[in-house]
Amino acid sequence: MVDTLHDTEYRGFASDNYAGVHPEVIDALTAANGGHQVAYGGDAYTARLQEVLRAEFGDATEAFPVFNGTGANVVALTSMMPRWGAVICCDTAHVNTDEGGAPERVSGLKLLTVATPNGKLTPESIATQAWGWGDEHRAQPLTVSITQTTELGTLYTPEQVRSIADFAHGHGMAVHMDGARIWNAAAALGVPLREFTSDAGVDVLSFGGTKNGLLGAEAVVVFDPTRVEGMPYLRKLSMQLASKMRFTSAQLLALFADGLGLRSAEHANAMAARLRGAFDADPVDGLSFSQATEANAVFARLPNAAADRIRERVRFYDWDRAAGLVRWMCSWDTTEADVDGFVTAIREEMAQEPTTLVS
Amino acid sequence: MVDTLHDTEYRGFASDNYAGVHPEVIDALTAANGGHQVAYGGDAYTARLQEVLRAEFGDATEAFPVFNGTGANVVALTSMMPRWGAVICCDTAHVNTDEGGAPERVSGLKLLTVATPNGKLTPESIATQAWGWGDEHRAQPLTVSITQTTELGTLYTPEQVRSIADFAHGHGMAVHMDGARIWNAAAALGVPLREFTSDAGVDVLSFGGTKNGLLGAEAVVVFDPTRVEGMPYLRKLSMQLASKMRFTSAQLLALFADGLGLRSAEHANAMAARLRGAFDADPVDGLSFSQATEANAVFARLPNAAADRIRERVRFYDWDRAAGLVRWMCSWDTTEADVDGFVTAIREEMAQEPTTLVS
Amino acid sequence: MVDTLHDTEYRGFASDNYAGVHPEVIDALTAANGGHQVAYGGDAYTARLQEVLRAEFGDATEAFPVFNGTGANVVALTSMMPRWGAVICCDTAHVNTDEGGAPERVSGLKLLTVATPNGKLTPESIATQAWGWGDEHRAQPLTVSITQTTELGTLYTPEQVRSIADFAHGHGMAVHMDGARIWNAAAALGVPLREFTSDAGVDVLSFGGTKNGLLGAEAVVVFDPTRVEGMPYLRKLSMQLASKMRFTSAQLLALFADGLGLRSAEHANAMAARLRGAFDADPVDGLSFSQATEANAVFARLPNAAADRIRERVRFYDWDRAAGLVRWMCSWDTTEADVDGFVTAIREEMAQEPTTLVS
Amino acid sequence: MVDTLHDTEYRGFASDNYAGVHPEVIDALTAANGGHQVAYGGDAYTARLQEVLRAEFGDATEAFPVFNGTGANVVALTSMMPRWGAVICCDTAHVNTDEGGAPERVSGLKLLTVATPNGKLTPESIATQAWGWGDEHRAQPLTVSITQTTELGTLYTPEQVRSIADFAHGHGMAVHMDGARIWNAAAALGVPLREFTSDAGVDVLSFGGTKNGLLGAEAVVVFDPTRVEGMPYLRKLSMQLASKMRFTSAQLLALFADGLGLRSAEHANAMAARLRGAFDADPVDGLSFSQATEANAVFARLPNAAADRIRERVRFYDWDRAAGLVRWMCSWDTTEADVDGFVTAIREEMAQEPTTLVS
Repeated sequence: MVDTLHDTEYRGFASDNYAGVHPEVIDALTAANGGHQVAYGGDAYTARLQEVLRAEFGDATEAFPVFNGTGANVVALTSMMPRWGAVICCDTAHVNTDEGGAPERVSGLKLLTVATPNGKLTPESIATQAWGWGDEHRAQPLTVSITQTTELGTLYTPEQVRSIADFAHGHGMAVHMDGARIWNAAAALGVPLREFTSDAGVDVLSFGGTKNGLLGAEAVVVFDPTRVEGMPYLRKLSMQLASKMRFTSAQLLALFADGLGLRSAEHANAMAARLRGAFDADPVDGLSFSQATEANAVFARLPNAAADRIRERVRFYDWDRAAGLVRWMCSWDTTEADVDGFVTAIREEMAQEPTTLVS
Repeated sequence: MVDTLHDTEYRGFASDNYAGVHPEVIDALTAANGGHQVAYGGDAYTARLQEVLRAEFGDATEAFPVFNGTGANVVALTSMMPRWGAVICCDTAHVNTDEGGAPERVSGLKLLTVATPNGKLTPESIATQAWGWGDEHRAQPLTVSITQTTELGTLYTPEQVRSIADFAHGHGMAVHMDGARIWNAAAALGVPLREFTSDAGVDVLSFGGTKNGLLGAEAVVVFDPTRVEGMPYLRKLSMQLASKMRFTSAQLLALFADGLGLRSAEHANAMAARLRGAFDADPVDGLSFSQATEANAVFARLPNAAADRIRERVRFYDWDRAAGLVRWMCSWDTTEADVDGFVTAIREEMAQEPTTLVS
Repeated sequence: MVDTLHDTEYRGFASDNYAGVHPEVIDALTAANGGHQVAYGGDAYTARLQEVLRAEFGDATEAFPVFNGTGANVVALTSMMPRWGAVICCDTAHVNTDEGGAPERVSGLKLLTVATPNGKLTPESIATQAWGWGDEHRAQPLTVSITQTTELGTLYTPEQVRSIADFAHGHGMAVHMDGARIWNAAAALGVPLREFTSDAGVDVLSFGGTKNGLLGAEAVVVFDPTRVEGMPYLRKLSMQLASKMRFTSAQLLALFADGLGLRSAEHANAMAARLRGAFDADPVDGLSFSQATEANAVFARLPNAAADRIRERVRFYDWDRAAGLVRWMCSWDTTEADVDGFVTAIREEMAQEPTTLVS
Repeated sequence: MVDTLHDTEYRGFASDNYAGVHPEVIDALTAANGGHQVAYGGDAYTARLQEVLRAEFGDATEAFPVFNGTGANVVALTSMMPRWGAVICCDTAHVNTDEGGAPERVSGLKLLTVATPNGKLTPESIATQAWGWGDEHRAQPLTVSITQTTELGTLYTPEQVRSIADFAHGHGMAVHMDGARIWNAAAALGVPLREFTSDAGVDVLSFGGTKNGLLGAEAVVVFDPTRVEGMPYLRKLSMQLASKMRFTSAQLLALFADGLGLRSAEHANAMAARLRGAFDADPVDGLSFSQATEANAVFARLPNAAADRIRERVRFYDWDRAAGLVRWMCSWDTTEADVDGFVTAIREEMAQEPTTLVS
């Protein structure tokens, strides 16, 4: 038998994928186990997932479970465009910064990036890259990709998504949403998933689960099948087709059972609010925040030296060391005590800083 | 909670990936759960996996867990060759026939195929494609890829692997083994894994687990690090880097705990031998076998009509309908009663065949 | 000024692209020179080319000039298929053997190859690879590619092309013709180009010119625009869009002016017939021919040692040294004296061979 | 024979590739014609080109003639990096904006772009993208690509190139120069080509010729062979290998014969200076210039309506219509009368503008 090799009580603020698997998800894996089920998606759990997602997002919905978020994004974007297509996205988008160039390398996608202060596109900023259709010299802008919640922990309102979708559709472009943290968005907005996705004009969604307590399961969810082509082939040739897909689908189903997905995300968001709130209520000299805390991420500015001392006690990531920016991420398993202890650690280490002006 | 939606008592002979997850593997997932662990491979289970595999295959071994077999093969082969490389493989190889063109599409690999009677390459058959080095017009043959056990259920002996490796290395080519069913090979050969892999001259192995009772975990295992380049980057850009890798690694570790991997494969092989043996001992008119049954697959010839009737009772795959060829695959959870019931079904349906000569 | 650095009187039998540029083609370049013309195809010569090719091949014809044959083939095939498509072709096809893997590497195309005795596909041999539509595991066979004249110097009749096209279209596949030597085919068949291309069911043609006396110009010629997508984009992103396209188009126009293309090909074919005929009329022991001489190539079998001695006097290529097979290629500038001298050289060197039986 | 179909006396200011072929280049083609020469680069002209370029750039130089500038850039950059590499370049770079995504699509290259006021990188601006080595999530910055002269008509001094090369090399990155207009740079700087290329630390050069009076010929010129890998294979698989390469090489040789390349570029630069100088000497209300005129391009700001009226008389390109920016490009065949007539046309049409404030 495999022994437990790690400290099961340690939790930090590095990433929501440092967290493990919610016990109800393990239960779902067990429920789907036993006997034989048709491989590659011909199983009862994948069939049920279709029903659940159609109920959630609309009757035209088709879901294609995949392994991970990069896979979901690349398969989704590739299905939305011919070989000459380009994607308009934020320069901070995960597809641009954190996927090792997978969109370009696996599918030959061109990314047309836009600089933004908060990780959110607008029709106006999209317009700076939305031109050149019909000119063979320019990679053709055919898809707009937005991230919800954004890489900077911010949120699009349903109206903002809608205005982007209207602009995109009006210019012949489709709309993709990277929803790696879509549950955190739903929890923060307090509206059903469909209100800021299918109902707001999104065509294809990278539906996230892993960052919200799953072992490893995401899905490409297609709301408008006329916007995609060849999904089954593209998932397979992109090496994202699970043989024992029943277990991928069972994980995704678990998010919808007893409100687990929303429950977990609400908790993570609440923990981020508690963390940010502690400092809003009682500010610390030299510590400030670069973004609104709208979901489960807190972006803080503090001296690098202080950050390093705090990190020796509780793990988290630098975001932009040159700018003294760090990210504190809460997850489904973050406890109030974790937050309070972290606040204390931060206060103690900030107190060690020289009292001179800090950036 | 997620309900069980399928008949947990039904088992067929379609594929070893129709089977579920071995209970000891679920235990391993649970053991690895709880607390926070560094994502993307910085966890204790992935570290332990390195130790286990080094002990198994040799001190230079490096393992890179990935999601699935296609991912393992493509990442492995890509890491072994520059952009102008080509792979010599059987025309029946999984990389050639069952991966939707992933090697060509994701990595631009050229496959130089060889027709074989039994799914096994030899130095002589490799030589028919091993030429043209230095000629810019010809995709450069730089890797030989063999499958163990083969897609036709046959086996390479350690000596046969060695002779291929000697030929390949002597011509400046590296050797890859697709080991999706490597445990079945080890069980059939009755030798340690290393005897027909690292010790026999294989440079890089696609190490299989999913078909042998895992939920979904494979690994690229590099025996000779000088034969590969950029593995971490290639795994990521090929969308095969798991965020919660501890659970992938824990599954792979489970195969080595209490002999689970070997035990499961020995059982699957024994069930195939029982199935084949039943007909060898008491042949059925019109039923014959196209390949030796050396591991967990039985390749049978019978009239399509009979195959279709049998399939209504127990599921299995056509292999080549034009040739009246089918595949019966046993797995870790196949029982003796499953085999015996299947034999009975086959006998009963074959008895319904017209008594005229069948092919 | 640039000096002539080579022997302008030397001609061999190595390849039709060892030959230079027909003087009438130089004249065409000069006619197109001077003043400014819109780049990238917006010039008068490219416009005229469209008219000429529509007159030749039919009113729906669209031509896309490119740099070379590999470019024409890859752009053509890519335009005919989505990312999951596969091409059925001969294993001897140029796209499979001589393009350095460009189809796989540039466009991720999968080639499904068929072994043939004479470089010609048939509906029956195509059928061996034409299956698996709808199965995401199999690269989808969506295009059949044939070569006219073939790499082995053989010819498809219009009827043979038609039977292939009917089979392909009947199975939802498009038809591509690699016409690098299409003029030699027209000359040999004695029919208009359209009779074995557009009228015979070919959808897209790689229209050759370089091997028939041009400096360097080919074109993707689309007969059925519904079979392709994104040609202008694909030509550009495949790096095959000439800026000063007027000169590419002027070369192609030259082939149609005063019958130059047909005239040159007829001559090359006649020279091959003279070469082959010399030995048919007066055979040489130890020299035989592996293929019918239907256009401008002669495939001969002779001892390697003899071939090497002959080659010291007149250059040509080994085709398959293991099989003692060589290729003798005639071109637009081959003279009768060249042929007669070559025959003499062959006879003299073959006479030096040991009189024992040669294969 | 092919008729002249265009007005050989019309010349505009749209692009240097609207111009035709210098007569001395036609002479070079003729000199290289006749007889047979080994295809694919085994000819006397390609051999001589190596000697000429080694004399020009240094003894380690290797030249690989290709068809066009996009081909040169993509082959060069691909040869400089493994599959996980990324290129740091200006967001205005031709590889980013005008190649239809070829770098991403053909070779899977990731471009890391930097916004600049004048199309010129600096060590400081490169540094904003030069980070993340060893992090598998980030495409690895391994090459810096600069353009000389830039897309905005500006110039790097040899010292500026050297400072970039020192920074790049100091961070383990190689240096590529897109020299589509390298002759204009040499003419403007008044120094030998090597002074701002090989001697200044450039590793690989896209050597331009087409924009400077050739029919169509560029070359990848490698100064430091240890910086590239697999050039012959990459050129072929990128569909940039000319069969009748003698004519590509002869064109490139023509640039070095009797100083043709430098002579032509000096003339083009002088015409641009004359054009700019006319307005510097006698400014026109509402007409200004966005960039220094350092080579053969003039970037002007004027009202769109005026631009459109002028364009009806003499052709040129909008550069950024939203910003009222146009590009006036001079070429080897631009005459003083062309410039003077253009100046007159501009003055006349600007005089028609409303006298209200123009941007």
